[in-house]
Amino acid sequence: MVDLQKHISESFSAQGLMTTLGAELTLVASGEVHIVLFPRPALSQQHGYIHAGALTSVLDSACGYAALTVAPTGMDVLTVEFKINFIRPAIADRFVAVGKVKKAGRTLTVCQGEVLGEQGSHRETIAVMQATIINIPGNTQQFIQPDAPTRAG
Amino acid sequence: MVDLQKHISESFSAQGLMTTLGAELTLVASGEVHIVLFPRPALSQQHGYIHAGALTSVLDSACGYAALTVAPTGMDVLTVEFKINFIRPAIADRFVAVGKVKKAGRTLTVCQGEVLGEQGSHRETIAVMQATIINIPGNTQQFIQPDAPTRAG
Amino acid sequence: MVDLQKHISESFSAQGLMTTLGAELTLVASGEVHIVLFPRPALSQQHGYIHAGALTSVLDSACGYAALTVAPTGMDVLTVEFKINFIRPAIADRFVAVGKVKKAGRTLTVCQGEVLGEQGSHRETIAVMQATIINIPGNTQQFIQPDAPTRAG
Amino acid sequence: MVDLQKHISESFSAQGLMTTLGAELTLVASGEVHIVLFPRPALSQQHGYIHAGALTSVLDSACGYAALTVAPTGMDVLTVEFKINFIRPAIADRFVAVGKVKKAGRTLTVCQGEVLGEQGSHRETIAVMQATIINIPGNTQQFIQPDAPTRAG
Repeated sequence: MVDLQKHISESFSAQGLMTTLGAELTLVASGEVHIVLFPRPALSQQHGYIHAGALTSVLDSACGYAALTVAPTGMDVLTVEFKINFIRPAIADRFVAVGKVKKAGRTLTVCQGEVLGEQGSHRETIAVMQATIINIPGNTQQFIQPDAPTRAG
Repeated sequence: MVDLQKHISESFSAQGLMTTLGAELTLVASGEVHIVLFPRPALSQQHGYIHAGALTSVLDSACGYAALTVAPTGMDVLTVEFKINFIRPAIADRFVAVGKVKKAGRTLTVCQGEVLGEQGSHRETIAVMQATIINIPGNTQQFIQPDAPTRAG
Repeated sequence: MVDLQKHISESFSAQGLMTTLGAELTLVASGEVHIVLFPRPALSQQHGYIHAGALTSVLDSACGYAALTVAPTGMDVLTVEFKINFIRPAIADRFVAVGKVKKAGRTLTVCQGEVLGEQGSHRETIAVMQATIINIPGNTQQFIQPDAPTRAG
Repeated sequence: MVDLQKHISESFSAQGLMTTLGAELTLVASGEVHIVLFPRPALSQQHGYIHAGALTSVLDSACGYAALTVAPTGMDVLTVEFKINFIRPAIADRFVAVGKVKKAGRTLTVCQGEVLGEQGSHRETIAVMQATIINIPGNTQQFIQPDAPTRAG
């Protein structure tokens, strides 16, 4: 697990978008990863509140890394798809994206995630996600899709 | 439509995240909006390719603005939820997020969107989205959720 | 709540599809509804196991009725959309569709649901759903969509 | 393709649920499958209209069989997940579920589907789906999940 935390921490640091968003990796446990994001003008939508896309980006990353914590050794992960519902206004001092593995498989892993908004001692769910992640051989480095077309789609 | 284009253009410019991502609004038509994004290190995932979250953010915005083009006068829009599938590696010189209205209603609008990757004369679909958008009175400025809880959930 | 249980029980009995599937309403509580389904040849897919569509149908109903338990008085509900992941083989003696309200609003309610497969003393999650439900005036009886188009989509 | 049509037709006939619903397989082409459903009391929701679950079931099957038409020889398919939006009232004389392959891969296939409602010469979209399907070796007959857990989820 120590090696895995180090691996995920390094991978996270290598994500230019996470740096651009100012996101912080705060928890890596087996089947669960947390990423924190703070609201600021550079992440806003047109009314000054945090953009749904910024929250979605960190929650997608949290779910992907959660899947990676339970992937077979040497495998990397790719997001196949996700669905997200925005259930409360994104107004908080701090947002915590929590990705959790619901079911890990040899090929696919299903995660459920939430963005929690924290304001003082108050904490509530801002968004909920359901995501499907695929394991791919780590040495392909994500640039050869495992899933090259066999017939025209 | 001219006023609507101006309104959407101003709204887009007011989105800090779109500026941070370097996104450009390139088409506003009735029921269809395009946003362009270029890959660069600040938007990368761990292997240097563009982060799925960056593509998702601009496609979400394209769908939301497409819904706004057909919303009743004076209404603003909020994303209720969306689902996105990543169907090809996100390798291209230029990404075009295309949001299109599938069905506009008094309260809800359903959009379908695609991210197209362009490389030379080659163009293919990288991601597909299905999104639900809600119309809200424009003067609430998106900080009073139309959907305040009536009973605990 | 007694009236609500009676109302939901009568509504459930009026659903021809639930009778056709042999589904049973087993729990109606505030924000949570259970529907039970038993595997049989009339509900099978091509290999003799229960069809994903049968499980989806009862889970959709469980989520819809869960939303109804927290809807404002006099309102009826309609499913706007849902997403479902099938995470384990649907092999069990008995399937319990559990719909739970995650967030109830004036207009929209978001539910999360699961299909649990029970075999002897063993119980595990077969499928997970995330659903959006809209409240509509009860006297429209679901045949006038609240959401009639205002402009072509 | 003739063999494939025969294979899909036999598979469809072996689905008890499709028989129970009275569904008819009306088109099998490369990357596209149609299934027709007629409204009747046995498929109703509480107000007498066709149940969303019945429409979802046939659209899921249409997308799955569409994926099968482009799967590598000898492979069978399983639905990983789907999302469906109900965009108009399900009032029609006849419903046509159209499943189309958007992108076929070695492991995963992404489909987009629609339920079209036909009433006289009028035809409109009732529901839209986005689905992910996985190819599995055909001789596993769908009772050994390809995706057995490697670690607890």
